[in-house]
Amino acid sequence: MSSNGVIRCKAAVARAAGEPMMIEEVELSPPQPMEIRIKVVCTSLCRSDLTAWLSQAQPQIYPRIFGHEASGIVESVGQGVTEFEEGDHVLTLFTGECMKCRQCASGKSNICQVLGLERQGVMHSDKQTRFSIKGKPVYHYCAVSSFSEYTVVHSGCAVKITSTAPLEKICLLSCGVAAGLGAAWRVANISEGSTVVVFGVGTVGLSVAQGARLRGASRIIGVDTNPEKSERGFGVTDFLNPNDHDQPIQQVINRITDGGADYAFECVGDTGTITTALQSCCAGWGLTVTLGVPKEKPEITAHYGLFLSGRTLTGSLFGGWKPKSDLPSLVDMYLKKEIEIDDYITHNLKFEDINNAFELMRQGKCLRCVIHMPK
Amino acid sequence: MSSNGVIRCKAAVARAAGEPMMIEEVELSPPQPMEIRIKVVCTSLCRSDLTAWLSQAQPQIYPRIFGHEASGIVESVGQGVTEFEEGDHVLTLFTGECMKCRQCASGKSNICQVLGLERQGVMHSDKQTRFSIKGKPVYHYCAVSSFSEYTVVHSGCAVKITSTAPLEKICLLSCGVAAGLGAAWRVANISEGSTVVVFGVGTVGLSVAQGARLRGASRIIGVDTNPEKSERGFGVTDFLNPNDHDQPIQQVINRITDGGADYAFECVGDTGTITTALQSCCAGWGLTVTLGVPKEKPEITAHYGLFLSGRTLTGSLFGGWKPKSDLPSLVDMYLKKEIEIDDYITHNLKFEDINNAFELMRQGKCLRCVIHMPK
Repeated sequence: MSSNGVIRCKAAVARAAGEPMMIEEVELSPPQPMEIRIKVVCTSLCRSDLTAWLSQAQPQIYPRIFGHEASGIVESVGQGVTEFEEGDHVLTLFTGECMKCRQCASGKSNICQVLGLERQGVMHSDKQTRFSIKGKPVYHYCAVSSFSEYTVVHSGCAVKITSTAPLEKICLLSCGVAAGLGAAWRVANISEGSTVVVFGVGTVGLSVAQGARLRGASRIIGVDTNPEKSERGFGVTDFLNPNDHDQPIQQVINRITDGGADYAFECVGDTGTITTALQSCCAGWGLTVTLGVPKEKPEITAHYGLFLSGRTLTGSLFGGWKPKSDLPSLVDMYLKKEIEIDDYITHNLKFEDINNAFELMRQGKCLRCVIHMPK
Repeated sequence: MSSNGVIRCKAAVARAAGEPMMIEEVELSPPQPMEIRIKVVCTSLCRSDLTAWLSQAQPQIYPRIFGHEASGIVESVGQGVTEFEEGDHVLTLFTGECMKCRQCASGKSNICQVLGLERQGVMHSDKQTRFSIKGKPVYHYCAVSSFSEYTVVHSGCAVKITSTAPLEKICLLSCGVAAGLGAAWRVANISEGSTVVVFGVGTVGLSVAQGARLRGASRIIGVDTNPEKSERGFGVTDFLNPNDHDQPIQQVINRITDGGADYAFECVGDTGTITTALQSCCAGWGLTVTLGVPKEKPEITAHYGLFLSGRTLTGSLFGGWKPKSDLPSLVDMYLKKEIEIDDYITHNLKFEDINNAFELMRQGKCLRCVIHMPK
């Protein structure tokens, strides 16, 4: 801590794409109007962090603090904030909810036009950073930057949750697990007895699987090229590794499902896999939902006949949840043991071991690594 | 007529892509089991006929009899047919309904797996033709081939309608007008007060517009490069010609609709226009429906971000109508003046002038040309 409300704290600062983060001391401004400052308690590593850090194709915004799936406690609030007070338990939101724009007001969408996905490394309000090192800006990620002992977010980019919920578990609802459940429930609205195929069985894909299981899907096919992912439960009834088959995997799926799945989910982040997912769905009503953020080629290509014969392609950002409105009920479901979170946590790491989390995810050896910030 | 049940009659025979059809005498077999033979009364020209006849990219199946949007009277029925009898008034169906396959039985789809779109120029059942000239096969189109005084169709590819309905009007419900209304009602389920953009304002596009108007859409934007289509009514409130604007038309649409339309319909048959339609829809809930059959490049290309931010792409074949189940109610709506058909008919032509109909459509100078067969 220091004068003028600036906090000096430790953050994992990324200096260049793919280079290990260094734990450095940063300065963090006080929250500006309508912002809150949070003491991060736990933050889990999501694949988007890894992709953004690894990819040369994305904007090279460095130095930068990654992290967007987190729980914490409000340290202070900026001018005009009435919704939060010091000591409140919160989840951060990588896509916020202003409650006022056309999208928020519609009741039909969670794509907030004011506090939506921030890609420039700055805060929504003034396009500046709150972090600095010796006066030089350190950029944000998704306007959350939770790989820091403290962070500042817009008050629309956090949601208050009950203090009885374990912050070291429910941080997974800040992104991955909620994204998968929502894709299954809100976006696809999976019906009982249906056949579901999930491409990419990491935490998001396995949360889709959990959502499908809870809806009574009769068959849940997980597809992944990583053989270590074959035995992970969460409702997956069949596992297919495309490398084990001579036929293209969509042909295998069409064969074993007698004409294609009712629902396909793309959780890899690859536009070629989106095409494969479409081809794995049945004519008439087959629905493909894309959740992933492609690492490379951003253009999807697909034959028009797939659509003309009744298939649909849609996208799911954060599972369609309106985050401030909907997340507290997901936390309640967890507390009532109606949904599973704990089993997605394969590793618990100290903050200083954050690079290990990136390495585990890069190697496909984890589901979620929860990083525990210093107390 | 001749012995053995074979009918000799006049048909418009296409001998090669793009070459004028000749009215020739053909032999038409009696209906085979579960088939019916129809005396065609009226048949209108749909753009798919024109595309199939013009395109070098499609299979060159000649000699061939085009035509798939027709009304007629049952002349005779094949073995096993109990649903029809001689004298019944019918509409032909280019996509049939077997009532038994996974798709038909689902109640969710009109993509019949048994009597769906036939592209090889033969009948579904035995992959043979019913037409011949001097013993040599003359191929079908969509297993309907209505540009003939008589034709044979599967009993699942026709629907009985009330004899009080004027056959010279309701033939348009056999394809174009029904396809557009269904896309608006069944596939998109347009809601009151919404903004709709229709790419391609021929008969199908203007039937989407009529459907949107009847659902209470507040704004219906027609887009077409043919300036003659600017004043055609059917609910269109704004007309945009992309050639009149320096900006890409999707940018114009986004500007005038404050962020994109609620619904976009692609009725041109161009995969590039499907992308433009997607880009013309709003984030959050924008729905693009593709109805057209592309003449050239069959692959749709679109940035994944369009989907991740909440847009959806789906297709509409024959407006999602289950044809045998649903068409009689559309005929009733016409008889009760709840839907408009007559104004789509810009030309009435004699059978011998059929090539004029193709020329009018090629030049964009008609909506529907109804061809009246000899009495």
